[in-house]
Amino acid sequence: LPDASAKRLRIVIVGAGFGGIQAAKGLHHAAVDVILIDRNNHFLFQPLLYQVATAALAPTDIASPIRSMFAKQRNVTVLLDEVEAVDPASRTIQLHGARTLAYDILVLATGARASWFGHTDWAEHSLGLKSLADADVLRQRLLGAFEAAESSCDPAAIASLLTFIVVGGGSSGVELAGSIRDLARYTLKRDFRNIDPEKARVLLFEGGPNLLAGFPDRLAAYAEKRLAALGVELHTGVQVEHVDADGVVAGGAHFPGKNIFWCAGVAANPAASWIGAETGKHGTILVGQDCTVPGRDDIFAIGDVASFTDVEGHLLPGVAPVAKQQGAYVARVIAARARGAAAPQAFKYNDQGSLAIVGRSSAVASLPHVKLTGFVAWVMWSCVHLVLLAGLRNRILVYVQWVSAWLFNARGARLMIGNSTSPK
Amino acid sequence: LPDASAKRLRIVIVGAGFGGIQAAKGLHHAAVDVILIDRNNHFLFQPLLYQVATAALAPTDIASPIRSMFAKQRNVTVLLDEVEAVDPASRTIQLHGARTLAYDILVLATGARASWFGHTDWAEHSLGLKSLADADVLRQRLLGAFEAAESSCDPAAIASLLTFIVVGGGSSGVELAGSIRDLARYTLKRDFRNIDPEKARVLLFEGGPNLLAGFPDRLAAYAEKRLAALGVELHTGVQVEHVDADGVVAGGAHFPGKNIFWCAGVAANPAASWIGAETGKHGTILVGQDCTVPGRDDIFAIGDVASFTDVEGHLLPGVAPVAKQQGAYVARVIAARARGAAAPQAFKYNDQGSLAIVGRSSAVASLPHVKLTGFVAWVMWSCVHLVLLAGLRNRILVYVQWVSAWLFNARGARLMIGNSTSPK
Repeated sequence: LPDASAKRLRIVIVGAGFGGIQAAKGLHHAAVDVILIDRNNHFLFQPLLYQVATAALAPTDIASPIRSMFAKQRNVTVLLDEVEAVDPASRTIQLHGARTLAYDILVLATGARASWFGHTDWAEHSLGLKSLADADVLRQRLLGAFEAAESSCDPAAIASLLTFIVVGGGSSGVELAGSIRDLARYTLKRDFRNIDPEKARVLLFEGGPNLLAGFPDRLAAYAEKRLAALGVELHTGVQVEHVDADGVVAGGAHFPGKNIFWCAGVAANPAASWIGAETGKHGTILVGQDCTVPGRDDIFAIGDVASFTDVEGHLLPGVAPVAKQQGAYVARVIAARARGAAAPQAFKYNDQGSLAIVGRSSAVASLPHVKLTGFVAWVMWSCVHLVLLAGLRNRILVYVQWVSAWLFNARGARLMIGNSTSPK
Repeated sequence: LPDASAKRLRIVIVGAGFGGIQAAKGLHHAAVDVILIDRNNHFLFQPLLYQVATAALAPTDIASPIRSMFAKQRNVTVLLDEVEAVDPASRTIQLHGARTLAYDILVLATGARASWFGHTDWAEHSLGLKSLADADVLRQRLLGAFEAAESSCDPAAIASLLTFIVVGGGSSGVELAGSIRDLARYTLKRDFRNIDPEKARVLLFEGGPNLLAGFPDRLAAYAEKRLAALGVELHTGVQVEHVDADGVVAGGAHFPGKNIFWCAGVAANPAASWIGAETGKHGTILVGQDCTVPGRDDIFAIGDVASFTDVEGHLLPGVAPVAKQQGAYVARVIAARARGAAAPQAFKYNDQGSLAIVGRSSAVASLPHVKLTGFVAWVMWSCVHLVLLAGLRNRILVYVQWVSAWLFNARGARLMIGNSTSPK
């Protein structure tokens, strides 16, 4: 038991994503006080965000109230607030509205956001997908495009409204493109009288030679075959050179389309500038083998906001398992410090593989010892994501909706709220 | 079979609420073309709206896409649009954006909205609850008040933030007040560190002598007893005389509170003015015994937008069963006209009773032959609402969430999106 007269360490964790949540949970039995700060009141299960954007799931199905996740862990205080600055010298952070807060150890887990890499005009004409608010906007645009097409009498306008351009062929872009095509082909099949939703075009642009960079070539080739069979028009090895309200220019050719969805890049959320840290790719904080910022053993950075290069020289990817494992690791380091014990060995990422859905009832799974495709991979994808979701309630709700979608092609979350019924 | 050379009647139904949906469904086998117009893409199951506002259900659970409800009924075309005017002489309606549409028969089913009866300043300081957008705003305010209180150090500010004033003691007000108190007492119990959610006050104001006007006295008395036991502070027989940002004045006394929810009145949505109809209470359209507008047998008005007085001189209440039965009746009248058959007899409302939830695991049920209170009434309430919900999928989802809420006091829909974290 901690000596009651000794001051307990105060750990401030900024960001309640996969990394921040895991760090706070890992400190359950440590004699420390944890303050977990997020600007949202919910933890978001990002891997299923595209299903909210395409009306397959409700926002609440993939979001869990942070407070209820820590209701029983009494050493955690949750703050709904935004960090504006950090003063590493005095070990204080400044919150929105000039309130300050002292820390003994700071864990930066602020994650990443969509990035258009300086093309601010492209950002105006295309929609990113990183938050629930983004997913709401994307869904309204998607459903609104079909509505506007149904009301239109101009064949050119209808064609443009029913063209969906997805930029970026990583898992997010692949899953989004497949899901839109699926929605058009199956879910909306009988719902309109003037348009044929089946005729909706989905164009997927990827600058690299293959979709799903990071997956083995055989799986990437399978994904391309499946998406093409579903009717997604693939443009790989083609750079998008321009984006405006009427479409994109790629490889010198103009592709008209009213709906442009941006899955081509992310950048770290602000945090490096708070502490004047050296930055890696896309504004990430370079960290050492113990996830601390070099020269500051009281500041950790984990997950998408951090750049971690392992002893073999590999930069770890910006995926949920890295963030979770780093969160758990940092909790062990902090708990050891609080006990006065020796620090654990350097962080080592245990890569358990990657999964991606490619259209209806099909997926690719790249696991350490086996590569799977098709229905088997899809069943595995479904089970893994159900297990990873937070809470029994959300698991049951998502399961019911997947079964209903699979059996009846129904998507119940086809909700447009407000009057944003048509694309700009 | 209809004579192919004969012109089919075109029926335009404005509003896809309980009345409009039922009217369109009732015309399934009629040789007519139906155009169903709504400004939203979904049918809303209003009786459960307060559960979305209090984070017990997700918006998508009580909303069904109108298009998918009519996917297989090929004589219905759904239009996502708003009506701006009607010209009864030329039998045309004008849609948003100056598009016009001809009709042979018009069914007005535009429903009602919250009304502050001319007190525009009261409307600024209190929140109504009639649409999903309203429910989103109310939920953000409710959860945001607890968040702002948790961050505050000023006891007076905390007390004001944690005071919830509900104006109107009909079923909506009673159900909302009970649900807020339930949320504070059970769901949020362990979630905060600086405030005690149990101390949140809920004040319920009703101008009439009893809550739940229209229910038998014994049931109203039971509801009052249950709500008081739950900790709702009842003020019956007291008129609210003033509403501002800091509270309400009622019966000459000032009640401070930052969160004011308005369940005290509704008015008909615009429709009477479109056709220059004679109006009843709160802008409703006076209709005859066959639900037509006097002097215009080609225009029907049903549900909350209509004022129907039965042969015994009773004005029918603005509740879902009246709208549904009138919708089904109007469909029969129109189908008979399309066949050239005699018109059915006058509309007769079959009152099957009323139900209202009064706090956790308790309800009142006023049925034709029996009056129930407590747990039995609550089980009945739950079953009736599950059956009335549209679609198996929504039924299962709502059931799962009710069971989870009942067993674990969990409310999964505690979602705040955007940054509106605190009351104005």
